[in-house]
Amino acid sequence: MSAPSEYRVFAVGGIPEVAEGDDLAALIDTALLAQETPLERGDVLVVTQKIVSKAEGRVIRLDDVEAGEFAAEWAAAWEKDARAVELVLRESARIVRMARGLILSETRHGWVCANAGVDQSNVGGGEAVALLPLDSSASAAQIRAGLRERGQPDVAVIVTDTFGRPWRQGLTNVAIGVSGMAPIQSYIGEYDDQGYDLRVTEMAWADEFASAAEPVMNKLDRVPVAVIRGLDIPVVEADHTALLRPPEQDLFR
Amino acid sequence: MSAPSEYRVFAVGGIPEVAEGDDLAALIDTALLAQETPLERGDVLVVTQKIVSKAEGRVIRLDDVEAGEFAAEWAAAWEKDARAVELVLRESARIVRMARGLILSETRHGWVCANAGVDQSNVGGGEAVALLPLDSSASAAQIRAGLRERGQPDVAVIVTDTFGRPWRQGLTNVAIGVSGMAPIQSYIGEYDDQGYDLRVTEMAWADEFASAAEPVMNKLDRVPVAVIRGLDIPVVEADHTALLRPPEQDLFR
Repeated sequence: MSAPSEYRVFAVGGIPEVAEGDDLAALIDTALLAQETPLERGDVLVVTQKIVSKAEGRVIRLDDVEAGEFAAEWAAAWEKDARAVELVLRESARIVRMARGLILSETRHGWVCANAGVDQSNVGGGEAVALLPLDSSASAAQIRAGLRERGQPDVAVIVTDTFGRPWRQGLTNVAIGVSGMAPIQSYIGEYDDQGYDLRVTEMAWADEFASAAEPVMNKLDRVPVAVIRGLDIPVVEADHTALLRPPEQDLFR
Repeated sequence: MSAPSEYRVFAVGGIPEVAEGDDLAALIDTALLAQETPLERGDVLVVTQKIVSKAEGRVIRLDDVEAGEFAAEWAAAWEKDARAVELVLRESARIVRMARGLILSETRHGWVCANAGVDQSNVGGGEAVALLPLDSSASAAQIRAGLRERGQPDVAVIVTDTFGRPWRQGLTNVAIGVSGMAPIQSYIGEYDDQGYDLRVTEMAWADEFASAAEPVMNKLDRVPVAVIRGLDIPVVEADHTALLRPPEQDLFR
């Protein structure tokens, strides 16, 4: 088989519990070296948002939050924690749907997801929640730069979260931050039925890589980092914005 | 590293152009043996719908289609081929959105996608289109059984197509047919903020595997099959239906 027809995905184990102020690049570098899998050119490093949020101090104690009236009413109607609902509203630029206890909103970054990405799991016994990083692509860029400073090769970094989708059950892992790769891969396909216009298929590789990484990240406890190796991804200066559908092309605003 | 923290994805090359009546299991078996990668227990075999549609005779010559008035008007307004639009309408159980030349509909199988999955690319010079298989999980089951008959181990088979998503740019490869694995993987997570209810996270593994397979399937020409190896997926009698969100839970009907 020729080289690009195979790749592998492996977990980066041994990363300790992350706290505010931790240097993620240093933790990931140490973990990569400890398991004798230093990065190689063309790799993609996949990092879950949870440790990014923790390192960046985006964990909020619910006791420190005062819910407004709107949040309190919704929370009472649907048996939610009003303080968590308040944070969801604060993290939202726009509510897309609000029904049956579910708030689906557009975050300030432009992502549409449940609860504006506010995450109540695994962050301090349930009395704290994690907000999405302020700028996940900047976080990815910082990890990428930190790894280079430590002597690792320059590779793409993706920060991920698990989102639901309309019409389909189950969550998939998707990219919310990108640094060092084009998030969309364009294939030039066949000529169309007129025989003239080339059809271009645009695949969301950053999202597909996030999904590819998930089975090794979530299956084991506390595996917040994975490496995708073998696809020889060229380093390109790009962030996540190509993944955001422009409002005028969006049929589900 | 322990076993489940790494897996690999490889293309199955050398599959010839598929025509109606071809035995896909036989073609895949031959290709697997030719590249000396027989299936192993716990593998997942990923097959693009295009070769399934071709083998099952779901390729329609546009000259054989007569467009109705509704299709003709829409096609004229948006510079589409009226015969292709007619097929999209026939393949749709329900139109979800119809705007700006795009028809997003629910297929008879329950998938919501552009053009009801009718595919104008790579199927005979633009004068023919491929419809989705009548029952992609049955197609997956048939491939799975055929491979077993040829002495390959019993492994899960996923039939895939590339779908767009609301809010995010780019397509991702998703599962439209499943045989031999649970399409949803449930993780039992932390206790909730009351300390009592277990949170269960349901990941759409069939879709994540479809996405994981795509970079080796589309990157090379005519690679309609890939293998996911190393996740040790247990064989479970299940089809795709767990991936369909029930209408009453769907905020985007």
